Amino acid sequence: MNSKTQNRRFVVIGGVAAGMSAASAVKRDDPSIEVIVLEKGEFISYSACSLPYFISDVIKDYRQLIALTPEQARQERQIAVWLKHEAMAIYPEKHLVAVLDRETGAEKTVTYDDLMIASGGTPINPPIPGIDLPNVFQIRTLSDGITIKQYIATHAPKKAVIIGGGYIGLEMAETCTVLGMEVTVLEKLGNIMGTMGNEMTAVIEAELKHQGIRVVKDIDIDSFEAIEGQCGYILADKGKQHFETDLVIVAVGVRPEVALAKGAGIAIGETGAIAVDATLRTNLDHIYASGDCTEVTHLVSGKKAYIPLGTTANKQGRIVGRNVVNPGCCQFKGVVGTAVTKICDLEVARTGLSLMEAKRFGFPATTVTITAKSRASSYPGGSPITITLILDQTNQELLGAEMAGKEGVAKRIDIFATALYNQMTVQELAELDLSYAPPFAPVWDPVLVAANVGVKKLSS
Amino acid sequence: MNSKTQNRRFVVIGGVAAGMSAASAVKRDDPSIEVIVLEKGEFISYSACSLPYFISDVIKDYRQLIALTPEQARQERQIAVWLKHEAMAIYPEKHLVAVLDRETGAEKTVTYDDLMIASGGTPINPPIPGIDLPNVFQIRTLSDGITIKQYIATHAPKKAVIIGGGYIGLEMAETCTVLGMEVTVLEKLGNIMGTMGNEMTAVIEAELKHQGIRVVKDIDIDSFEAIEGQCGYILADKGKQHFETDLVIVAVGVRPEVALAKGAGIAIGETGAIAVDATLRTNLDHIYASGDCTEVTHLVSGKKAYIPLGTTANKQGRIVGRNVVNPGCCQFKGVVGTAVTKICDLEVARTGLSLMEAKRFGFPATTVTITAKSRASSYPGGSPITITLILDQTNQELLGAEMAGKEGVAKRIDIFATALYNQMTVQELAELDLSYAPPFAPVWDPVLVAANVGVKKLSS
Repeated sequence: MNSKTQNRRFVVIGGVAAGMSAASAVKRDDPSIEVIVLEKGEFISYSACSLPYFISDVIKDYRQLIALTPEQARQERQIAVWLKHEAMAIYPEKHLVAVLDRETGAEKTVTYDDLMIASGGTPINPPIPGIDLPNVFQIRTLSDGITIKQYIATHAPKKAVIIGGGYIGLEMAETCTVLGMEVTVLEKLGNIMGTMGNEMTAVIEAELKHQGIRVVKDIDIDSFEAIEGQCGYILADKGKQHFETDLVIVAVGVRPEVALAKGAGIAIGETGAIAVDATLRTNLDHIYASGDCTEVTHLVSGKKAYIPLGTTANKQGRIVGRNVVNPGCCQFKGVVGTAVTKICDLEVARTGLSLMEAKRFGFPATTVTITAKSRASSYPGGSPITITLILDQTNQELLGAEMAGKEGVAKRIDIFATALYNQMTVQELAELDLSYAPPFAPVWDPVLVAANVGVKKLSS
Repeated sequence: MNSKTQNRRFVVIGGVAAGMSAASAVKRDDPSIEVIVLEKGEFISYSACSLPYFISDVIKDYRQLIALTPEQARQERQIAVWLKHEAMAIYPEKHLVAVLDRETGAEKTVTYDDLMIASGGTPINPPIPGIDLPNVFQIRTLSDGITIKQYIATHAPKKAVIIGGGYIGLEMAETCTVLGMEVTVLEKLGNIMGTMGNEMTAVIEAELKHQGIRVVKDIDIDSFEAIEGQCGYILADKGKQHFETDLVIVAVGVRPEVALAKGAGIAIGETGAIAVDATLRTNLDHIYASGDCTEVTHLVSGKKAYIPLGTTANKQGRIVGRNVVNPGCCQFKGVVGTAVTKICDLEVARTGLSLMEAKRFGFPATTVTITAKSRASSYPGGSPITITLILDQTNQELLGAEMAGKEGVAKRIDIFATALYNQMTVQELAELDLSYAPPFAPVWDPVLVAANVGVKKLSS
């Protein structure tokens, strides 16, 4: 197994989005290359973004989250998947990976011609006493999702506390509400949803309140306190506050999993994630990296950023696969930071830089915020969409956009994402020939309303 | 009334989308300018695109279609609206318009400093015997809509025939179906929806069939035949075919209303609509034109085009208003030809050139068509979206896109509209950082799937 075969061999560390995309792309472009995927967990190729909907039972069966099983990978794509096999060390000079079979405890080695690190991200585990209590969960892998769903089914928690008011925290707040729990979200900072503007978070907080979800901001958690071996309440703000709970979800962010790469002498970027060039190569020959363990170029700031997302991982994986077959053929230029989520009845989306981020990078940024209907006012069923544009006051370019509303947000944000890719000015945005029909948009689409207000602000 | 006042005076011919936008923009930017709107009909500032939904009673009251009444225009915006006043002639040397008061029959004149022609479009009236029968309708103005709705309420037609399988014809087919009628659509050409590709019209025809709407193509109508003074049946294909009906809607297209402009010596473009420059001036000093009576520059073909749409009219009207106040300050660069409509349960959209149009303009065009889900496959409720991309084989640029599906089409088309504005290549399209969350899109958005297939086709 550790002797090199006649054929070229591509070894992938991590079998979720980036890893399986790369493995599949290699086999599609050159079936003669042997492909081995090392996956430390029990599953490959699943949709982590769907976990809140699996737990809320909108998606009934965990198998619906899996795009490809190891058996399918083997039979349909001739990809060898080593499940429950953890890469322990990379020896770049020897083109070799040391692997632990987590089931048997056996140690193995595997050689490679090309290697890809798709080790993903790990939930940040804040050092709070009691975080290891059995009903305090992180949500990252499919196994995490199955565990939480089973816990809820067997323990029927009545109260849930979510630690962290970002995307995943609020998705899990919705999930627990759908399941009938009384939900509290505890956010350390003064705002939910990271660096989003106040106009947007006000819309989101109103929806959370409407759904009966309590949000407490500016709070420091002291400890998770046990009652009969389970977390029964949470102490915060030096004992001044106290939250009863039957279930805790910790969702305070993700950090790139880079220990293995570091150990092999692979360069880590300023963001703490693996640094790669445009062809997704690391600083070491024949070693690529992609997905949630790597940093990307943010096309608006021009800086490196750590924005772990499934779409990026899939795109990058495919590019690595192609580059393995035809070195240097494909590039991943970067992202503009587009993201969308469903928070109860709201669609919340963003792209580009927030005002806070834009100012941090030194842009002369300003914002405009508008609210306009999703449909023609005569047509029934529309609802307000709130849009904030972040604009460069000097060159009048769009720097970012944030949007929230009950319909028509998720794909409208992509107009701004496309505008950012093309470095459009707000005046050019206002000239766009966007679709109009009463059931889908007012004659002045909210995007155009926002752009017109932006033009006016920058010209005054 | 025909003596010139101290203040500048802006006269607008036509008080619907373009006209009222211009009038309002002038008053917003310079309240000292006197603004008079001449409207030959009974209503101003209404949403013609909403008429099918008003007739189907999705929109109950015609007043919901009106954005601004003449009283509101006068009181809130200081715009004088002369209702039922038809401009009969323009005398450019005298800066004077001859006006007929259609209610009293009185003839008047009004002088202007600046004039705008927003005379709109007129439905094409095919010279078919019997077209003047009382139950054969055109649908263009709010008055038309009220008349048709009243006719249906009083006559309870059981069968309807729609002449023309374009946007408005199919919207009216839906309307009549919703109202319980048995509907037949007769289309002269071999395809419905103008120049849309076969892949798209197949999706639309399947939906029409599913809704019980019969579509007959390649058919020549001989005559509308009367029974007791109403059209009772239609003869076609030299008497070989025969369609019983209680109601006929003729929707075979719109032509620009240019008689008044022609009479004044205003240049008409190659498309038959009024020619304007980028500031929306005609060839005559101080005379602007906008909306459905004018031609536009198609930003993809670079040629002039006649594409009468409410969004364009509104944008143009606002630009005319600003240019009246500050001559030359604003430009209307053109359109990319974006349109969307709801056809029963389908959203159907297009932007840019169709394959047929692209070839006519000499582009080395090819197409790719894909079908992909609107949501992550694990998430319930998604439905297929079919996308055709029209691509330039030489420079790899996007030339157009067509899309149909039950959800997620109307605003996804705007990604392509934005791409066309920016002359993006299909490779650049594939690099877009589009929003992803399981309730709203698969990890590979249908737009990216189409772009990837396009890249592959052009590189092979």
